[in-house]
This record gives sequence, structure tokens and C-alpha cells, in this order.
Amino acid sequence: MPITGRSLVSTLPGPTPAALMIEERAKAMFDPSDMLNVVEGTAKKANKIMELYQSLERDPLLAPGYADYELSRAENREQTTARIARMTQYVELESYADFWRRLNLVTAYDPSLGIRISVNLGLFINCIKGNGTEAQFRYWCLEKEAKFMKQLWGCFGMTELGHGSNAAGVETTAVFDEASDEFIINTPHIGATKWWIGGAAHSATHSAVYARLIIKGKDYGVKTFVVPLRDSRHQLMPGVAIGDIGQKMGREGVDNGWIQFSSVRIPRFFMLQKFCQVGRDGSVTLPPLEQLSYISLLQGRVGMASDSYRICARFITVATRYAVGRRQFKGDHTGKSEETQLINYPLHQRRLMPYLALTYAAGVGTDRLERQHERVVRQLEQAVENNDDAAIRRSLADTKSLFIDSAALKSTLTWLAELCITEARQACGGLGYLAYSGFGKAYADWVVQCTWEGDNNVLGMSAGRSILKNVSDVLRKDARISGSLEFLTRAKLCLGSERVLSTESDLSPAQVLKALEVLIVRVSESALQKAEQKNSWDVVSYERVLLSKLSCHHYLLETFIGTIGEVQAPGLLYALAKVIRLYFLTHLLENFGREFISFLVLSPDLSKSITSKLIPESCLEVRDQAIPLTDSFQIPDTLLNLAIGVYDGNWYENYFRVVKTLNDPSETKAAYSSDLEAMLNRDSVADRQRSEKSKDAERKLSR
Amino acid sequence: MPITGRSLVSTLPGPTPAALMIEERAKAMFDPSDMLNVVEGTAKKANKIMELYQSLERDPLLAPGYADYELSRAENREQTTARIARMTQYVELESYADFWRRLNLVTAYDPSLGIRISVNLGLFINCIKGNGTEAQFRYWCLEKEAKFMKQLWGCFGMTELGHGSNAAGVETTAVFDEASDEFIINTPHIGATKWWIGGAAHSATHSAVYARLIIKGKDYGVKTFVVPLRDSRHQLMPGVAIGDIGQKMGREGVDNGWIQFSSVRIPRFFMLQKFCQVGRDGSVTLPPLEQLSYISLLQGRVGMASDSYRICARFITVATRYAVGRRQFKGDHTGKSEETQLINYPLHQRRLMPYLALTYAAGVGTDRLERQHERVVRQLEQAVENNDDAAIRRSLADTKSLFIDSAALKSTLTWLAELCITEARQACGGLGYLAYSGFGKAYADWVVQCTWEGDNNVLGMSAGRSILKNVSDVLRKDARISGSLEFLTRAKLCLGSERVLSTESDLSPAQVLKALEVLIVRVSESALQKAEQKNSWDVVSYERVLLSKLSCHHYLLETFIGTIGEVQAPGLLYALAKVIRLYFLTHLLENFGREFISFLVLSPDLSKSITSKLIPESCLEVRDQAIPLTDSFQIPDTLLNLAIGVYDGNWYENYFRVVKTLNDPSETKAAYSSDLEAMLNRDSVADRQRSEKSKDAERKLSR
Repeated sequence: MPITGRSLVSTLPGPTPAALMIEERAKAMFDPSDMLNVVEGTAKKANKIMELYQSLERDPLLAPGYADYELSRAENREQTTARIARMTQYVELESYADFWRRLNLVTAYDPSLGIRISVNLGLFINCIKGNGTEAQFRYWCLEKEAKFMKQLWGCFGMTELGHGSNAAGVETTAVFDEASDEFIINTPHIGATKWWIGGAAHSATHSAVYARLIIKGKDYGVKTFVVPLRDSRHQLMPGVAIGDIGQKMGREGVDNGWIQFSSVRIPRFFMLQKFCQVGRDGSVTLPPLEQLSYISLLQGRVGMASDSYRICARFITVATRYAVGRRQFKGDHTGKSEETQLINYPLHQRRLMPYLALTYAAGVGTDRLERQHERVVRQLEQAVENNDDAAIRRSLADTKSLFIDSAALKSTLTWLAELCITEARQACGGLGYLAYSGFGKAYADWVVQCTWEGDNNVLGMSAGRSILKNVSDVLRKDARISGSLEFLTRAKLCLGSERVLSTESDLSPAQVLKALEVLIVRVSESALQKAEQKNSWDVVSYERVLLSKLSCHHYLLETFIGTIGEVQAPGLLYALAKVIRLYFLTHLLENFGREFISFLVLSPDLSKSITSKLIPESCLEVRDQAIPLTDSFQIPDTLLNLAIGVYDGNWYENYFRVVKTLNDPSETKAAYSSDLEAMLNRDSVADRQRSEKSKDAERKLSR
Repeated sequence: MPITGRSLVSTLPGPTPAALMIEERAKAMFDPSDMLNVVEGTAKKANKIMELYQSLERDPLLAPGYADYELSRAENREQTTARIARMTQYVELESYADFWRRLNLVTAYDPSLGIRISVNLGLFINCIKGNGTEAQFRYWCLEKEAKFMKQLWGCFGMTELGHGSNAAGVETTAVFDEASDEFIINTPHIGATKWWIGGAAHSATHSAVYARLIIKGKDYGVKTFVVPLRDSRHQLMPGVAIGDIGQKMGREGVDNGWIQFSSVRIPRFFMLQKFCQVGRDGSVTLPPLEQLSYISLLQGRVGMASDSYRICARFITVATRYAVGRRQFKGDHTGKSEETQLINYPLHQRRLMPYLALTYAAGVGTDRLERQHERVVRQLEQAVENNDDAAIRRSLADTKSLFIDSAALKSTLTWLAELCITEARQACGGLGYLAYSGFGKAYADWVVQCTWEGDNNVLGMSAGRSILKNVSDVLRKDARISGSLEFLTRAKLCLGSERVLSTESDLSPAQVLKALEVLIVRVSESALQKAEQKNSWDVVSYERVLLSKLSCHHYLLETFIGTIGEVQAPGLLYALAKVIRLYFLTHLLENFGREFISFLVLSPDLSKSITSKLIPESCLEVRDQAIPLTDSFQIPDTLLNLAIGVYDGNWYENYFRVVKTLNDPSETKAAYSSDLEAMLNRDSVADRQRSEKSKDAERKLSR
């Protein structure tokens, strides 16, 4: 008898997915706990994550459940609020770094909760910290306790109905009234209505408002102002109109709102004035280093890059487990009476294994990005504190480099994560479409990541433009480039038509990294010619986004090579070597195959062989360790919250139990059943038409 | 003063999208009504569509509204039921062809409604018609009125929890009991639970059940049986257990259910027996032409291909209108003080215009597929009616050809439609994420099309395998191929390494069609070698899906060339020539660039030039007529139901009105506001911890 089916009566043998999972785990060539240390960067970080996972899976409010997939918008908001309240108990006690790690993990399964807190702590408070004086930070964030999610709740009033990506174009005005020593905040027309503002609809007491500073008729551009929205009894301030922007595609737990200001007056010292000061007489001291004011936005981008890793880990885990436990059709050469496991089909491997490999590359790459961000912010803070001009300048260069890296990784990885969720869902067939498999909600919640805090195309264009400028500086001015794009310094050696990849033996990680560098330079050079010829950056926007994607992969591949270089254990090394190979064969050489071939970096023959021979071989190798490789992410069942992705593989019974628990089959009729019955049992057409169209009527009426 | 803003007070000039729309329409080189005739195939069909649009936009129950985006699952089901009842009033009066066209149009904005009716009329009834005898069809569909959505409501009991794609593998059993002359329908284990069954949870009275016919211990494979589920009072029959499968990613209006049969007895003559008969003594007459029984499934695939066209038309319309009315940043060379319209950015054109072109190709291609389907079904019915063996055999060949075409188009176009909705949504920035823009619901409702009624990868593999077999027959056996793949007859001429596209002047539609044929043959030949070498079809699954996609585009491009060949009016011709060029440059030559180059069909230099020069030029040309080209789909505002895509372009005000109407801003507090206020105004940590961790406590406790 089958090993499942013990808890239910089976009259014929049923499926036995749990047994298949045991078989897979027996093949493991490494300990998944050791692998977690690699993919998370350090054992210390991995341990902290396991500690937090344990705390979260037990927490009565923060632990997710299948019923979460059934919540209405109102219930969703209520639950999110309860979870926020629970999170405030941690923010007061644990270190800020630990709290952010907790928030990062929570975000992977409850992104509404994540973003509601991030807007307050990550955008509102960072805005005050980045743009405000020490005193302003101390006043609102510490004395008024906003940093501990207490007393005040801040939202981030940047986006307007008419302006999203172009923050410098917002049209809300802040006119200085010298007589009263106040700014008058006003929304001049519908297009300047603050829109999308997370937390505005019902939660926020304050907003960091982006508005045009206007003094004596002169427009000084967009500055930031702290504007109270609700009083201590949570009533809207006079002049402030706020509404809920309503139903969204996802993230229903977030009370996004619109705000219109009608001549709202705030004291002069509510303008954030680290860089720009307005005197009592309306005199303006303009910022020497205003670029620095945007560094506060980078934390969000860095976070979204690592969110991409975590969401991919979650869904590639479920799709891989399902592929092991699910049989369908009989494949070639099985010689068995049973149907074939999905994971043993070459096409199925090809659909999933490259995303598993990508998840590893994204894991190590975003860990590096997090560390880079911490370092840059810390050094900049120190430099500013010490008033060290040389150090500030160095920090500025590092900040620019971080800007490019975070823009390229945020945009490229959030897009790839979208594709990963979609492919993983389709790989679970019809069951992927059911809510308790988690894909639907996760996708709907996810995709806004491609748009907000820097639209992916806008970010990609921006990163690509910086790359182009760097290449131009090297080629035209012999400049040296520092940071992660340092390889561009050798751009001249990359031009021409020398092929980097011609035979299978060329396909080492180091050589592929070199090929990628050559491609980046050649694409750049070609784009520069076009841009210069037409004297326009717009005409090479497509190439700029392409370069941004390529540079993201350069960052990931380079990091991954470095990571593997430090691993000792043979089992880990074996698996990682397979993973990195599949990653660059698919996500680089195949996906950008047209570019690699047409810029003469890769030979057409090798490209054909990659697609028809090397990728299938590589997929099979990764498939062999696929369960240990997904187990390595160590996400507990409770936090996975995916009915078909349970650790023990016994998903048929688990799934059926979830469905029956949440949809009581003893209720055999629905609210609308009576309408349906009436419809089926309706009178004939003739009767309903009172027989007015009958022969009898015709006879009578034609008399 | 701006022309918008008249209805609201503006203190500074606001955006004027409606004026921009007027400018665009003034540039039209053709009348959109004339274009509708082209894209729909005939003026007659176009007129019928306009008649139905008018009827639907006025119908109090069938017309959609923005509030539809707010419905809970229960409300959604209730509304869908009311709309079904309304649709029954039409099915009794209009021709079946007109009713199906109505259903097709309704499906584009209310897919739940569409599928609930399609499962009953399209799957249940077609199953009886395709597999049942004349008497069986007459009994259940006419006498019991199922065909008119009366008395009976049928569902389609094929999929099981353990079997979706492999219908021949379902495990429900139908054991013949000679003593009682009955079949005993039984679900042997959890994996055989009927799952996903649309309409089962609450609506259906009957199911067409796919089950294994077992007589005297012998398994005769899967046959179809009519099984009553609910009695005339809509109570579950004994032995029948049914439940709601619960929340889904989308299509919440559909009551998908699970069914378990526990020794349910049905009379012998409830087995559908057009092809397979069971005698009173259990003797079995096996079907001579069982393949024909699957033709009833093709209608659904054909329908999904044209659904793809309609959903693309809907969303490319809104994204294009938005791109005209929305300004952001200042592009290069505008020389104006205003920000640039999104549609004037090269990258934005490149994101949207190819999907506009695709929509046209899909429009004419799916019109051809619909006509092909009608013809094949009609001819087969006549042949069977006349017992004309030769005609039946001819019909079988046509059916096989239709199978390949519908599989390739259904899978390729439903995938492309998914990408189109996604790109169009992202092109609308943050506003694309808001529910009243329609993208979220449409996407969630849409994507199941990629999985059901033939999973896209399974269909693609199947179509690709047929193509490979055809090529093999031609190359190895000099066979002649008929139908839409007739070009494969010339396969030998396509082998080798002769380049088809080397210079810009090669890029005519006819030459690109030829290039596509060459590519299909070369990919096939390479895959055949691999398949033969490894003696496996599985190893070339990737190539099979690739071939399916290429053959879909061959079908579309060939049809499009033919359509344009019949157009006379110069304005239409001008626009269509631009559209077809963009279609093949992007969806063919760029998207399959790696394959075109590596199989030596396209030169690397021309590929580079297509990407960097020709596509941008072509996008610009299509952009010029983009609004007339989307107006041509003639979808009225009410049925578009997209707040930012209104015809007059005045979307700022329209959108804000919708948001305020559905989210009353006078309700300034939410249900959870008090929880939030309590959280913000909580006591200090020390107080909440009863000061147990204080110095004072430490002093006392350490005594």
C-alpha cells in the first residue's frame, strides 16, 4: 500500500509524493545548513536568520496562515495593523540591524506589512535623517519617538498624480510667507495631488512632503518639508484633504492615499534644512552637496534587490518540491509502469533549474550589495560628522557607484523575480493558480516592485547612462574607473572583433565574466556612436537598459566566483560549481545570445551547442541536487505558507485538508443557489413573453 | 487656462491630456471604422460586433462598472450568476453563432462569466455532441434543454487532483455491473478526486465524467459518462461529495469544485457511446475513429486564441492612450517648456508599439483560425452524417492540421497576451497597479489560460512534435504536407547554410516569411538528428515548443500578408504596411534573433541594424498612427472599463472621480484606526514591563 493514504481510505494505490522526497534527500552531497552560510554570506548572518525564522513561525500574530489568502481588503488592513503593533514590540527591544533583518524576512511573506513599516522607518525617517539637521532628526525621530513607531507615524509625500518618476518635477508649492515666517503648502491643481502615498489614507500623522520652494516668486526647486496631517486625536488637520486611493492590484494591506493641501501653513523650521537653509528674511543658502540628499532612497532599492532573492527562494522551493512529487505522462526510456516525475523531464528542468541557479547568484550578489550599502552609508556619516572634505568626496564617488549598482540590481532582479514567480506558478500547473499555493497573492503583491522607488526602465536607463559615460571617459579620456565597474578601465582591450568564447572549453566562469565585460564595452561603444551621431541619450535608451541588465549580471557573476573561491567543503563546491555554470549558460549566454553573437563575442556554433546540448546537461546536474539546494534556503513550512510546497512532500493530503478546512463542504448550497435554481427552472420563452408572439396573437392582431 | 481644470479649481496650469488626444486623432490617415473591417476579417462581422457592443454597453446587468473591481468572492459569484441569468435570455432568442460572438465579447471584460457559460455550453454539451449518440445529444441537450441553459447545468469532469494534462491517465473508475446493467463510478483515492471542475461547487446538475471503463477486470481506457450530481431540488445525489476548491488567483466568479464519487450507480446508457459501445452482456465495440472524440476540445482552444487578440486590444488601447496623455521628464530636443509625452520617447514606443502590431497580427490570424475551425467541424459533421468514409478521412487530416494550428496559436498567443498585459501595465507606471485601471484583475483572470484546456508547454510540445514528424516525412520519405504547414513540403530547399536575410532590402514581408520557413526547417532538422540519436522525443522538448511558437508566427504572418493584399484604400494600406513591418521586425527577427543568426538565416550585422536602427524607425512610424490604430478596435469606454483609458483622454479627472466615488473621503477614519491610535499612544516599554527590568528591581532582587 502507498505510504500516503494511511489517513484516508484508498481502494487503489494513490500517489506517494513524500516517499519521492525522501529519495531526493538521500542523494544530498552536502548539508543544507552549511549551504545556507554560503548563500547568506556568513554563518553569523545565517544563524541570525534561523533565530528570526523560529521566532516568526511561533509568533501568534506574525506567523502567516492559509486563511491570509482569503482576506478582504478591510480584513487585510486590520490584520496588517495588528501585525504592525506586534512589530513595535520588537523595535523597542532589539538592535536596529536585527529589526531590519526581521522586517526583511517578514516582507517575503507579508509584503504589505513590510512596506507599511518601511515607508515610515525607511522613507520618512531616512528622509529626515538625510535631509534634516541633527536637531530635526532628534526632535521628530527620537524625542517624538517616530523611530520607535510611537506617537508619530510618517508617510513619504513625494509622488503626485502627475509626477512619479520625475521627482524633480513635482508641482506642490511651498511658498515662503515672510510676514508670518511660515511656508504655505498648496496643491495647485489635480495633477499635483499627492498620490499613492503609503500610510496616508488612515495611518500617518505626518508626511515628508516634496514641494517646490518658492520665495518672492523665485522657484528654488524641490525641497522637503515635514507637514503634520493628523492631530493627536488622529483628526485631519485643517486644509488637509485625504482619501483612500482604493482597490489595487495587490498590497491591499497598505492604506495608500491621496493628499491635497489647501494653503496649509507650517513653521519655517519644518523645512528639512541639512543642505538648504531659508533665513528669517527669505534668504536662501543653497546646498553644496545636494546629491547626498538622495542617498536615503538607496536603502529601499538595496532592500528590493534582496527581496528578489528571498521571493525567488520561496517560490523555486515550492515549484521544485512539487516537480519531485508530481507525476504526469510517461516519459521516454523510463521502463517503469508509473508515470514520470515532472522533475525528470528535460523541459521541466529547463524551466525551473535556471531560476534555482539565479536564486543562488542573487543571494550572494545581494548580500554583497547590502554590505556595500552599509559601508558607504557608514563612511559618509563619519565623513560628514568629521567635516572631512576629502572623505566626503571619496564617499560621493562611492555613492555614485552604489547608485549604479543598486539601480541595476533593483531593476534587473525585480524583473527576474517576476519571471521566476510566473514560471514557477506555471510549472505547478492548475494547482499553481489556486490561492493556497501562494503564487497569485505573491505575484500581485510583488510586481509593484518593478515600478515604485525608481521605475525599472527609468533606473535601468540611469544606470546604463552612467556606464556609457564611464566607457566614454575611458575611451576618449583614458579615465580610470573605480568600484564595481572597475573593469571598464580596460575597455580599449575589449573593442574589435576578437571572439572570447568559441569552444566548450572556453566556458569557465572567469572566461564568461571576461566575455561579459567585452560585450558590455562593445555594446557601449556602439551605443555611444549612435548617441553622439544623433546628439541624444534618448535614442540609446534601449541599449542603456540592456547595459544595466548586463552590469547586474556582471556584479552577480563576479561575486559568485569570489564566493565559490572561498568555499572548502567538496560537497558544497561540487554543487556550487554546477549552479554557477547553469546560471551563466542560461541567464547570460542564452538569454543574451543574440547580443553575444552579433557583437562577435560568442560563436554561432557554440551558441547552438549551448542551447541544444550544454544547458540540458547542466540542468540535469543541478536537478540531481535540486531538493538539497532548495532545502538550503531553510524556509520553514509556516513561513513558506504554500499548501503544495510542504517540506515532507505530502502535499496531496495537506492541500486537500487546507481546502476543506477553509471551504466547509457541508455547506452544499451557496447564497446564490436559489437564483441559479430559479434560472434553471424558469418558464418557457413563450410564457414569459405572455404568448404575445404566438400564432394565436398573430391571427388576432392581423384581423 | 488648461482645458481640463474647468470642472475643478486650478491655481496653476494643470495637465491637458484630452487636448493631446485631439491632436493625435487629427493625424489619422484612415477611418478607424474601416480598419475594424480589416482586423475583424469582414464588414459583416465588424457590424455584428458593433451591434453587440451597443447592446452590451447598455445592458443593466451585463455592462461592467468600476465597482466590479471591488467585489468579494461571494459578491463576484452572485454577480456572475445574475449575469448568467441575463445571458440565458439571449441564448433562447438569437442564433447560436451570434450568441457565441456575444459570449466572446463578454469574456474580454468578464472572463468568469465567459468561462462559466463556456464550460456548460462549450465543454459539457460539446462533449455530449462529440462523444454521444444523436439520441443522447437530443435527450440531454434538447429535450432536457441544457443547450439553452435550462433545467440542466453541466460541468466537465475531466481533470483530477493527480491528473491534468494527461487526460488519458485519469483514475476515476467506471466499473460495469452486469447484474444491474449499471456503471459504478468511483474515486479510488485522493489523487483521483475530480479537481478544478468549473461550476461543480454550486451550479452543476450534471457532469461529463472522464473515467476508466472497466469490464470484468479489463481496463478499456478513459471514456465519458454523464453523471447526475444534484437532483431537481439541487440537493447533492447520494454518493456524491462536492466541495468548493476555494480561493484562486483570479476568476473568483467561477465556482470551481472538487468531486468525489463513492460507488455512484448510473444506467449503462449514460455512457457516451458514439464511438465506443458496451452491450448488455458487457461486450465492448471499440471506436474506429476515437481521435474524432477530441475535436470537441478544439473549440475552447480556438476561443482562447481569439480571446488573446481581444485582451491585447483592450490593454494596448489603454496603455497607448495613457502614453499620449501623460508627460514625464523632458526628452532630448523637445525645445519646449513642457515635459515630454511618454509616447514620444523611443524606449516607450519600443515597449508598446510592437504589442500594438502583434494585436493586429493576432486579430487577422485568429479570425482565420475561427473560420478554419467552423469549416472543419461543418465538413466533419456532414461527412459523418452522410457516412462518407473518404470525406471522413479528409476531415481527419484537416482536424489534425487544425489541432496543430490551434495548439500553436492557443499556447503562443495566450503567453504573448500575458506579456502584453504586463508590459502595458508597467508602461502606465504606478497607475497601472491601481485596480480601476483593470490590469490587476485582467492579469489574474487571464493567466489561467496558459494552463487550462491544454497546458501551453504540453500543447507546444505536441504541435512541435507534429511539425518534426512532418519535416521528417518530407526529408526521409518525400511526403507532401497539406494545410497551413504546406510549406514544409519544400523543406529540402531550406536546409544548408544559405542566408535569406543579409541586407535591409531583404526585409519584405514575403522574404521574412520565407526566412521563417527556412528557420523552422533548419531547427527541425537539427532537433530530428538529436531525437534520433538519443531515440527520444523528450530530449527535444525545448525545440518542440520553439517550433510551435515559430509556426504560430508563420500562421499569423502569412495571414497578415494575405489580408493586406486585399486592402485597397491607401490610408489603410499605408498604416498596415507599417504595422506588419514592426510585427515581423520585433516579434520575429528580434525575439528569435539568436535562432535566426545561429542557424545562419540572418546575418549578425543585419540583426544589429534591426535592433539599433530599423526597429526604432519602425516604432516611430507606427507611433504616428497609434491612436487611430487603437481607436480601430472600437471598444466602447463602458466595456473597456479602465479609468485611465477613456476615449476622450481626460483621464486625470475621470480617474479621480472614480476613486472618490468608490472610496468616500468623508469617512476619514477606518475600522482599525482606533487600534492604530492605541498603538501609537502606548505606554513606555518600562511601564509595560511593570518596571521589572529596572535598576530598582535589580537592587531588590540581588539582595
